Amino acid sequence: MAGGTKRLPRAVREQQMLDAAVQMFSVNGYHETSMDAIAAEAQISKPMLYLYYGSKEELFAACLDRELSRFVDEVRSKMDFNEPPKELLRHAVLAFLKYIDEHRSSWMVLYTQATSSQRFAHTVREGRERIIELVGRLLRSGTRFPGPDTDFDMMAVALVGAGEAVASRVSTGDADVDEAAELMINLFWLGLKGAPSPDGDREAGAPDGDSGTDASHADASASLPN
Amino acid sequence: MAGGTKRLPRAVREQQMLDAAVQMFSVNGYHETSMDAIAAEAQISKPMLYLYYGSKEELFAACLDRELSRFVDEVRSKMDFNEPPKELLRHAVLAFLKYIDEHRSSWMVLYTQATSSQRFAHTVREGRERIIELVGRLLRSGTRFPGPDTDFDMMAVALVGAGEAVASRVSTGDADVDEAAELMINLFWLGLKGAPSPDGDREAGAPDGDSGTDASHADASASLPN
Repeated sequence: MAGGTKRLPRAVREQQMLDAAVQMFSVNGYHETSMDAIAAEAQISKPMLYLYYGSKEELFAACLDRELSRFVDEVRSKMDFNEPPKELLRHAVLAFLKYIDEHRSSWMVLYTQATSSQRFAHTVREGRERIIELVGRLLRSGTRFPGPDTDFDMMAVALVGAGEAVASRVSTGDADVDEAAELMINLFWLGLKGAPSPDGDREAGAPDGDSGTDASHADASASLPN
Repeated sequence: MAGGTKRLPRAVREQQMLDAAVQMFSVNGYHETSMDAIAAEAQISKPMLYLYYGSKEELFAACLDRELSRFVDEVRSKMDFNEPPKELLRHAVLAFLKYIDEHRSSWMVLYTQATSSQRFAHTVREGRERIIELVGRLLRSGTRFPGPDTDFDMMAVALVGAGEAVASRVSTGDADVDEAAELMINLFWLGLKGAPSPDGDREAGAPDGDSGTDASHADASASLPN
């Protein structure tokens, strides 16, 4: 099998190296992972790995770029700002948590390892700011009666922080995706405070009383159109 | 001044070294900070620094221990579980954010630098779990009609994540403490869903409709007893 990899096209081999690197970084962390270990995981020689990526720092940066782009592209592709706010919210939250459940190593690298160095921390901060901006737009577009002092940006910061914390539980297998999604949808919906409920089912999560955050009330995924 | 430090008692000098280390780590990160830089900041010799703390890793661990203990002790000292839930919540959130505003370097070290190495990440994860447990207790004690499937633990995870994100904005000077506190109190209060309002002022943040998350409604700090 190791011999067979010699005939692989460059693009395929690059992706295999990145796959191996993400896997190793997610388990042992950036500083504790050696290029030897990554080469072994990718079943190639260390000189070959250096030929493609130059240094561990460059390799890690390439991992971050790929993982961040894939993640943001996937979640954005499921967000249609022409949809009613509640549907938009459901689709975004479910896309977010399902992606993380299916790409746990990716999330661990982005969330816990990328702050290992100031340079990488900057990349991740920028990615987070883009997501906060998206959520802020979602809150603005979904709120019927915003007060003059309503701080949508700070609410977006809080909700994205909540989402990251819940996602981390999903990534370690300590939370069920559907239950986590229901809780997040309810919390975000409360953050929308008084948004119109386009489908008329205020009891499924609209902020009108005790039912607001009850995770047992409805199955979010069951009522999704797709 | 440099000469005068020679007559300082050991305990005082230890704290000065830790102060200098926290300051430098918060600015440049764990891996990018040298013992030379910390010795210079503390106005002592590098051999003296090594005499007290052995290695950069040991010094960082001592910083984490001190900063985590101070932080948790401060917030816990402001939480009285005999208080009505709303007061308990206000006191905890305000203590949390005020502490961070007044100890910004400490927060940056705990929140962004401590994940630099697997060993330190473990310490911080344990600290976070203790706080999530406290918040879970707060949610349980404050909820009048919990559903059979209400996942207080996951709600606590989400709310602590929200709190960390807002705290980071406070630590960089990008958020006002009182406004951030009001937003967090409202979000947590919504998380309590249907908690009894002991002082009868449901309109100040109880989850009974549009007023729930309106940061402009009330000044949380103004109604505090102390």
